[in-house]
Amino acid sequence: MLLHLSTWPEVETYLQQSQGIIIPIGSTEQHGPTGLIGTDAICAEAISRGVGETTQAMVAPTINVGMALHHTAFSGTISLRPSTLILVIKDYITCLAKAGFTKFYFINGHGGNIATLKAAFSETYAHLEDLQIQNYQKVQCQIANWFMCGSVYKLAKELYGDQEGSHATPSEVAVTQYVYPEAIKKAPLSPEVAGGHKIYGAVDFRSRYPDGRMGSNPDLATPEHGKQFYDVAVEELSKGYLEFLHQE
Amino acid sequence: MLLHLSTWPEVETYLQQSQGIIIPIGSTEQHGPTGLIGTDAICAEAISRGVGETTQAMVAPTINVGMALHHTAFSGTISLRPSTLILVIKDYITCLAKAGFTKFYFINGHGGNIATLKAAFSETYAHLEDLQIQNYQKVQCQIANWFMCGSVYKLAKELYGDQEGSHATPSEVAVTQYVYPEAIKKAPLSPEVAGGHKIYGAVDFRSRYPDGRMGSNPDLATPEHGKQFYDVAVEELSKGYLEFLHQE
Amino acid sequence: MLLHLSTWPEVETYLQQSQGIIIPIGSTEQHGPTGLIGTDAICAEAISRGVGETTQAMVAPTINVGMALHHTAFSGTISLRPSTLILVIKDYITCLAKAGFTKFYFINGHGGNIATLKAAFSETYAHLEDLQIQNYQKVQCQIANWFMCGSVYKLAKELYGDQEGSHATPSEVAVTQYVYPEAIKKAPLSPEVAGGHKIYGAVDFRSRYPDGRMGSNPDLATPEHGKQFYDVAVEELSKGYLEFLHQE
Amino acid sequence: MLLHLSTWPEVETYLQQSQGIIIPIGSTEQHGPTGLIGTDAICAEAISRGVGETTQAMVAPTINVGMALHHTAFSGTISLRPSTLILVIKDYITCLAKAGFTKFYFINGHGGNIATLKAAFSETYAHLEDLQIQNYQKVQCQIANWFMCGSVYKLAKELYGDQEGSHATPSEVAVTQYVYPEAIKKAPLSPEVAGGHKIYGAVDFRSRYPDGRMGSNPDLATPEHGKQFYDVAVEELSKGYLEFLHQE
Amino acid sequence: MLLHLSTWPEVETYLQQSQGIIIPIGSTEQHGPTGLIGTDAICAEAISRGVGETTQAMVAPTINVGMALHHTAFSGTISLRPSTLILVIKDYITCLAKAGFTKFYFINGHGGNIATLKAAFSETYAHLEDLQIQNYQKVQCQIANWFMCGSVYKLAKELYGDQEGSHATPSEVAVTQYVYPEAIKKAPLSPEVAGGHKIYGAVDFRSRYPDGRMGSNPDLATPEHGKQFYDVAVEELSKGYLEFLHQE
Amino acid sequence: MLLHLSTWPEVETYLQQSQGIIIPIGSTEQHGPTGLIGTDAICAEAISRGVGETTQAMVAPTINVGMALHHTAFSGTISLRPSTLILVIKDYITCLAKAGFTKFYFINGHGGNIATLKAAFSETYAHLEDLQIQNYQKVQCQIANWFMCGSVYKLAKELYGDQEGSHATPSEVAVTQYVYPEAIKKAPLSPEVAGGHKIYGAVDFRSRYPDGRMGSNPDLATPEHGKQFYDVAVEELSKGYLEFLHQE
Repeated sequence: MLLHLSTWPEVETYLQQSQGIIIPIGSTEQHGPTGLIGTDAICAEAISRGVGETTQAMVAPTINVGMALHHTAFSGTISLRPSTLILVIKDYITCLAKAGFTKFYFINGHGGNIATLKAAFSETYAHLEDLQIQNYQKVQCQIANWFMCGSVYKLAKELYGDQEGSHATPSEVAVTQYVYPEAIKKAPLSPEVAGGHKIYGAVDFRSRYPDGRMGSNPDLATPEHGKQFYDVAVEELSKGYLEFLHQE
Repeated sequence: MLLHLSTWPEVETYLQQSQGIIIPIGSTEQHGPTGLIGTDAICAEAISRGVGETTQAMVAPTINVGMALHHTAFSGTISLRPSTLILVIKDYITCLAKAGFTKFYFINGHGGNIATLKAAFSETYAHLEDLQIQNYQKVQCQIANWFMCGSVYKLAKELYGDQEGSHATPSEVAVTQYVYPEAIKKAPLSPEVAGGHKIYGAVDFRSRYPDGRMGSNPDLATPEHGKQFYDVAVEELSKGYLEFLHQE
Repeated sequence: MLLHLSTWPEVETYLQQSQGIIIPIGSTEQHGPTGLIGTDAICAEAISRGVGETTQAMVAPTINVGMALHHTAFSGTISLRPSTLILVIKDYITCLAKAGFTKFYFINGHGGNIATLKAAFSETYAHLEDLQIQNYQKVQCQIANWFMCGSVYKLAKELYGDQEGSHATPSEVAVTQYVYPEAIKKAPLSPEVAGGHKIYGAVDFRSRYPDGRMGSNPDLATPEHGKQFYDVAVEELSKGYLEFLHQE
Repeated sequence: MLLHLSTWPEVETYLQQSQGIIIPIGSTEQHGPTGLIGTDAICAEAISRGVGETTQAMVAPTINVGMALHHTAFSGTISLRPSTLILVIKDYITCLAKAGFTKFYFINGHGGNIATLKAAFSETYAHLEDLQIQNYQKVQCQIANWFMCGSVYKLAKELYGDQEGSHATPSEVAVTQYVYPEAIKKAPLSPEVAGGHKIYGAVDFRSRYPDGRMGSNPDLATPEHGKQFYDVAVEELSKGYLEFLHQE
Repeated sequence: MLLHLSTWPEVETYLQQSQGIIIPIGSTEQHGPTGLIGTDAICAEAISRGVGETTQAMVAPTINVGMALHHTAFSGTISLRPSTLILVIKDYITCLAKAGFTKFYFINGHGGNIATLKAAFSETYAHLEDLQIQNYQKVQCQIANWFMCGSVYKLAKELYGDQEGSHATPSEVAVTQYVYPEAIKKAPLSPEVAGGHKIYGAVDFRSRYPDGRMGSNPDLATPEHGKQFYDVAVEELSKGYLEFLHQE
Repeated sequence: MLLHLSTWPEVETYLQQSQGIIIPIGSTEQHGPTGLIGTDAICAEAISRGVGETTQAMVAPTINVGMALHHTAFSGTISLRPSTLILVIKDYITCLAKAGFTKFYFINGHGGNIATLKAAFSETYAHLEDLQIQNYQKVQCQIANWFMCGSVYKLAKELYGDQEGSHATPSEVAVTQYVYPEAIKKAPLSPEVAGGHKIYGAVDFRSRYPDGRMGSNPDLATPEHGKQFYDVAVEELSKGYLEFLHQE
């Protein structure tokens, strides 16, 4: 059930049965010479909708732009500051908690969002307590990173070995190829790229990773792989969502 | 050309030819008993993509959640505070301006966004000057409200007369029906609803507009109308974008 | 009744009869070679006091400095950032709403304030709801731009035709001449100046409007005109205030 | 020379001779049963203009509303939060420093502003250094509290002895009577009121000082006294301003 | 009783007997060629613990970094912006007030903190009222500057005369020598240094006070003096704390 | 080399040889019935100083209060909001980076700080780029959680097995016993406590973990263990610091 394709009376009806909502969050950032700038949002959105269908959960509109400051030396990247993203998350949850939602399941497509999301959750719990919103003490937020699912890791290992890398990975590129087969990009890629450097500022990042990839070989991706990743991620996260929903 | 379906080298190539970008901005808010919560984002996104195709312009990911605090007494509405939205817009433009974009054309689907967007533009121009970003003095932002296009007004008048109203209007509902025919909602609507009250806080809004509509009869909407609205809006805003792009 | 010339017991007495207050807001910004930097505040204050006398309304101290970032390339301009002005308005209304005021009528002398004021109202309604201040749901804010009164437009058209322009206009200059006849400035003005450009950043503004005027000929202004503008604005806004006060 | 009655070319001319500006800052707060709510702004403004005339200095529009949170349990008080006032001061000085002003002399009418003003100055010096504004290292801000002038203290002691008190004092009330003789208020005052308590929150303040006075007997004030206070304050602060202006 | 060496049940027990807490606040800033960068924090912490022992008061962890922006042109200085420090103080007091503390006694080692602390207190009182925390109206904050104690002034005058100066003073250096005899530094000092200049921005400060001292001769300090200062400060502030604690 | 026991000329000398600095960060929060409220700060500070001695690195004053909002339902806990802590970190690093430091090694004693610290680093890198501080692109921040050292894990496993738990652990309690043997607390502990629940808001936390422990048995701690943990952590983090310092 997609929030943006629902009416408010439908939301009220839903709330009588469930207080859970899935919020896809991605990023708008460079993904190497062939990866789509929207990769993280595309993956998070597609998988969230799959999970929503499987579990009958409400799915909120995708947060397309996240925390990607370290990618901003590449054209096309858009990032919120962490302090901005914290306010965004606080505003989202405050609105939805007032309406009665208490279980917020963020399906996340971008590693760079994790820290800020966690900080935002802490900020928000305290804010809801300040406001003394009904049931504030029941509000729970959880991050589910699809790319860190056990089943996804395993599949990526099988398919790509150590060419999976950690940014502009063949696994995430494969999911975008599955979702948008019409937008598969090809470009000559140097066979090996650096990997394993820590991430600091944007200028430093680009100097270490000149084409944007981090140790990955996205040439290995296929739409068929993408469907496989999608399937295992949806299955694993559907279980994860239901456990989260039903835990006290 | 959709930013989220592009790669960063494609964006660099684009920037050599054009410094313009279209940013769709909508809202996630109640639209009466039959209007979709995502109406404003759906319309802004669809029309932006149409304009992007017509003009070869880059189209950024849609800002799905805007300033809809006055709708927050209805379940399902998500709103940013104006102060948050200002930061979001500032972060977006700062990233893109650093990359070389100078012409920001916001195709907007929600009247409630207008004031905050304008405030955000002022805040951002000063911020870019503070940072002394290259070409900061060339950065220009413009709001284009599709629902305020002359051609849209005219068509709505012809089709709906004074049943167009001002929120959850048949024209915007029609566009969503055209875009998502599978999500057409039906519910019994009282024949007449109040209209014309000013907008203040959320509780006050709901007491004046109990089912969320403002003087509108969305029952009149059809997907065919939606296509008509889409077509005239795309045509008019394509001209608007090109004028904006080419003005000094 | 002027707030700054009242005592707190007088305010308490007033509140037993009325919960309305007029807040003049202007700007401190360049107004061309002959216009006073305080023009917008002077006009808003004078007209507010006229309306206050006519309607027995409380008039708050004038907000002299508003949102004029686009004028800051001219010496003498002082501007708040939109984000600052939002906080200022929120602080004002919160204090006054706690005391029992619920109807806030901002008589505004500067177009550049409008967007930020509207954003501030939205921010404030939500803030008051957060605080659960008594009667928060009754708080209403309205902007009344004296220069956009029908009667003012009409008079300006009659007196100045298309030489009224849109900044440093003869109408506003005339009001300042009426209020401060001792401060009438003369300087050679080029007969025609540019007009009609959109407003972006401060450096861009000054390059388009080198002497600060926007399509106006303030040489046409006289103190007698000023009195006429004052009279029609006070009359129209007095009606506007009373309607606002008595509306539910 | 009053900024609001000047034109921008006049300001440019002024800046060639002097980089100093006087900024009056007051407050809008209860001043006991007979003191005007605008007392602090009225005094600061009148004395600033006197100093401006004596020294040929530019005088900015008065900041009417300051930091008076501890008075907000009395109707009619308007206060900025310290964090808001810091932003306001930062915005003011940043605009004026960009134009070339470097010496900011705040003539202050309210003890409650002092701490926040000093904090704001520190915040602003660092901000100007961040922006690398020309001559940022020459920017100097100073607070001149008219009510703490030696000559004012001496006169108050002579005229009122220990009935001067520390809020709603006869000296400040006298100045307002001199400036606005038409607004002299009378009300029965209890002969003695508490004084000497420290100031904490607003509710606490009102419980300690039920009629708003702090150890003062404003009944002793006369317009003639007001003129005397005005004269000595203008004389002393004119010297103070010139010393400040000419110090390196 | 040191908070950081207590358990939460011990704090609960303490709160049944007393609602007072001492919060040492210092600074991390240059103190001339021989003064320790931690001087202000060291002094505040040592004296706070002495007062805590004398009065059986709870002592919070030391706020080591305060408002020292004007010292930031010297390496090793760390400063919060005033706006940051206000938030820090607000967060501290809000947590502790929720737990039941109502009397906050800040023993301060740095003049530059005073203004921001006072601003923070005002901000916090209003915040606690906004939150309607239990007993919010009883919360009281007080600054006790050990270096401004009458007994400290007197002793410094006796020992150092006008070589005490106003920054990197022998008195504060002596206290650090008493606390950390192993960290006594020696360096050749010019016999006389400038003093008496007002404090503005960081670059200006360093140009006026090239070695960081303000009119002081810290060579006069001895650990024995330090003990004397410590003793008189602890005695005077212990009385001060108890008066504060017992005042209504 | 401890920053607070150094002079500014010593810092300048140090900077000619090294641009690295260790910043201990802990928390002030409940640690169960017998754990010290300052546990996390005590451990971080002690281990940081050990690492500083081993590596000749500069050690900054300890950040005693971190992000512990989820512990605030227990008396004595003090927490910053994540948004506040981000500003604090930004201010620290900005000051130190201006002085020439580029390598910031945060030795952290509290899991709850990690997310906010990472968010703060991202915010800060972008801020330094905005300011165009010299060498901004070389600034690197790293978190080193002593309790997550491999050697610490191993030792805790050996000594405590699954009674280590995840909050108020015997390992951290042991370190505080080693550092402050005079502050060893004893209280009857229930033999088993809950563990493994996720962390949400403060009220929820206390309902799940009524005495504050999370699956731990701190009764097992001894000062001798503490020395062992201290030794292995210092050894491992000293290597970690040097690697960080020398990496490009």
